[in-house]
Amino acid sequence: MKNIGISERIDLPVDRIPTRWYNVIPDLPRLPEEYVDSSTGKPVTREFMDRLLTPAMAAQERSTERWISIPEPVRDAYQLWRPTPLIRALALERELDTPAQIYFKYEGTSPSGSHKLNSALAQAYYAKRDGHTRLVTDTGAGQWGSALALACKLMGLDLLVYMIRASYHQKPYRRHLIETYGAEVRPSPSTTTDFGQRLLAADPDHPGSEATAVSEAIESVYADPGSRLAVGAFSNHCLLHHTVIGLELREQLAIIGRTPDYLVASVGCGSNLGGFANPFLEDKLNGADITILAAEPEACATLTHGEYRLDFADAQGKAPAAYTYTLGHDFVPPPIHAGGLRYHGCAPLVGLLRHEGLLDARAFPQTEVFAAAKTFAQLHGYLPAPESAHAIRAVIDIANDCKRTGRDATIVFNYSGHGLLDLGAYGRFNAGLLQDVETEDFSTPVQA
Amino acid sequence: MKNIGISERIDLPVDRIPTRWYNVIPDLPRLPEEYVDSSTGKPVTREFMDRLLTPAMAAQERSTERWISIPEPVRDAYQLWRPTPLIRALALERELDTPAQIYFKYEGTSPSGSHKLNSALAQAYYAKRDGHTRLVTDTGAGQWGSALALACKLMGLDLLVYMIRASYHQKPYRRHLIETYGAEVRPSPSTTTDFGQRLLAADPDHPGSEATAVSEAIESVYADPGSRLAVGAFSNHCLLHHTVIGLELREQLAIIGRTPDYLVASVGCGSNLGGFANPFLEDKLNGADITILAAEPEACATLTHGEYRLDFADAQGKAPAAYTYTLGHDFVPPPIHAGGLRYHGCAPLVGLLRHEGLLDARAFPQTEVFAAAKTFAQLHGYLPAPESAHAIRAVIDIANDCKRTGRDATIVFNYSGHGLLDLGAYGRFNAGLLQDVETEDFSTPVQA
Repeated sequence: MKNIGISERIDLPVDRIPTRWYNVIPDLPRLPEEYVDSSTGKPVTREFMDRLLTPAMAAQERSTERWISIPEPVRDAYQLWRPTPLIRALALERELDTPAQIYFKYEGTSPSGSHKLNSALAQAYYAKRDGHTRLVTDTGAGQWGSALALACKLMGLDLLVYMIRASYHQKPYRRHLIETYGAEVRPSPSTTTDFGQRLLAADPDHPGSEATAVSEAIESVYADPGSRLAVGAFSNHCLLHHTVIGLELREQLAIIGRTPDYLVASVGCGSNLGGFANPFLEDKLNGADITILAAEPEACATLTHGEYRLDFADAQGKAPAAYTYTLGHDFVPPPIHAGGLRYHGCAPLVGLLRHEGLLDARAFPQTEVFAAAKTFAQLHGYLPAPESAHAIRAVIDIANDCKRTGRDATIVFNYSGHGLLDLGAYGRFNAGLLQDVETEDFSTPVQA
Repeated sequence: MKNIGISERIDLPVDRIPTRWYNVIPDLPRLPEEYVDSSTGKPVTREFMDRLLTPAMAAQERSTERWISIPEPVRDAYQLWRPTPLIRALALERELDTPAQIYFKYEGTSPSGSHKLNSALAQAYYAKRDGHTRLVTDTGAGQWGSALALACKLMGLDLLVYMIRASYHQKPYRRHLIETYGAEVRPSPSTTTDFGQRLLAADPDHPGSEATAVSEAIESVYADPGSRLAVGAFSNHCLLHHTVIGLELREQLAIIGRTPDYLVASVGCGSNLGGFANPFLEDKLNGADITILAAEPEACATLTHGEYRLDFADAQGKAPAAYTYTLGHDFVPPPIHAGGLRYHGCAPLVGLLRHEGLLDARAFPQTEVFAAAKTFAQLHGYLPAPESAHAIRAVIDIANDCKRTGRDATIVFNYSGHGLLDLGAYGRFNAGLLQDVETEDFSTPVQA
């Protein structure tokens, strides 16, 4: 019987947490291009990477091993919330009157609220194990920052977070959460780095971006020998750690005897898409008819409007440069509420998939995204992060296509995080104040 | 081996969601006193109750059946998040260096964020089934309001929520959540009822209380024949619905072969304590050495400082009066951040347990409660609601006692809800602005 009830959960027992991460690199049609050191114009050296990142992460970044064991302390910490449920969205199927089956992998149940904790725990564990004392990082909406703050507290490390200024002010609750976990938070641009000071001198109201925050984080890393950079999305190792999502999903789909026709995830930089979809790439390369779709914001449409070329990962050009899709490292996206998607580029692995024709992409305006999010919340109770809501918006189109064609497709999207700390944005949407252009006045608080 | 790792989860499969609620009334040493109609001074009539509540709830309120079947649509909706995990807090045990085992029942995983959805779904289901068009309710911190808003949306009913003014302004995110689910929210005192207008005329800055919100909700119910009152905590039927918590807990403890020595829950009105602990009352009455402990705020210390007597459930004296512990129906608690605990009385069933010597109680100041909450968040990642954090604060004392006496006790507390929408209060605590007296200036926002 179809479409009775609100939802169906497909759970895995705790002993089915994956024991290994899946590294997609050996299965790709070709290897990703090497990173380029912007100061020399040549491929980055091992020394450069070991000083910037922890050596363990620098090594994982270049690994061509297909499977990498998850250290026991990391896997133990995963037990805080993993395996995450796969949930069939029966109510959404009924609302759309679609013959398709819609499932979501619910990463919002993590203590920090999103998938980000998968990689945060790994990065904090290796940094502690190898004797570093502090990690420094950037955060957009704050989901990465809060995940890494918790991970550093659990593993016993200090943490400094540069949070892009627009989110720092729009989303004080995320800042409070990062601070409650014990980390230090500074807005980017900040007054505490040379680069931040220069940006603020030129524009005291500079909203910041992921790229400015990365630049300031790198400057802070070089200022302290015990510090290393933690990377929330761009890097190969980050996507690697998130493959626990897709690996669990494979098992859950096997339980119900389905294979995916569509795998949909939002993309800012690509960590949730990579972790969710990469474990299915080998099937796709072997002929399985799987559409992998990236949903991105129109205001920062990297994959649909960017170029595939060498570009810097940060605003200042101090980070390595990489071949990927980019809107230009000096692009400052308008302060939309999906702060996690405000990045000029994307992960090189995701860019490569797109360049090789293995990844579809669509861009959506934020009012449509919030309308989809509200519909979902009213049907399923769970309030999506604006980032995750891009995937929901994309799924609605696919499900409507299936209705037209009568196709009983299996659509799975990654519900990367909850939107409880984005309720200020929902309040603006409910009050009709949300706009799709950069002229929205964020200084006006919502009144009752 | 003891105390390796951060936590251990004891999960139940989805088909172990209880099929029946447990009604404690037939197992009590004596029946609760009847409600008294304040206008007549006599026991309430069936007609009075049927006009105020839905007749289905009025009937459950007086039921002496030990087991009441959960309607299939309610049990289906429970599948959105139930069964909830039981989690052993290994890291907290280690932090306290206690021989005791500490477990928590994690109700914060519900879509609305707390245990409240257990009863909200039931009340909305029966109201819809019996042809009512709208529910009206009061909410303190907003956890009940958001749960009922979601339940009404899922079941297809309108909802009007009176939210106590202090929370309405302190916790705009909860208001946005209620509105995102589609309900109407008004601050109490409001300008839309006679009672609210009188309160505001006397004091334009009246902070409101659960009691003022109940009075306004009742006035709105009587103004519309299709409307009925939904009750978030006080009533027997509400405690009944929450017994799914304790019933699941019994099964989970049986899996690991433990019986509880301490059952700890916060008490505002008593819905989470009743649902959590009542299914163990028969064991206690049959001689099991179980301490049931209520943790309440010093600022509203009903069970430790109140009197057991007949008092009104609302501020105006239009609700039925009941025998229970009370600080007086005209008591307006200071605006502490645990808004859900700011109620002058408590559920008659909880008051009766206390009066019969079956329930212990302790009161805590809010700075100690937030310190306990922050410790817990740093150890386990999950950010507790200030209400739930009262239970954590109480558990720390018990675990420390066990350390002194060397007792390997089993302590279980109810983690009734998450505190993600209370991060404004955490921000104040982190900034050193939180105080234990009513002079805290809530008008000053936290600055970075």
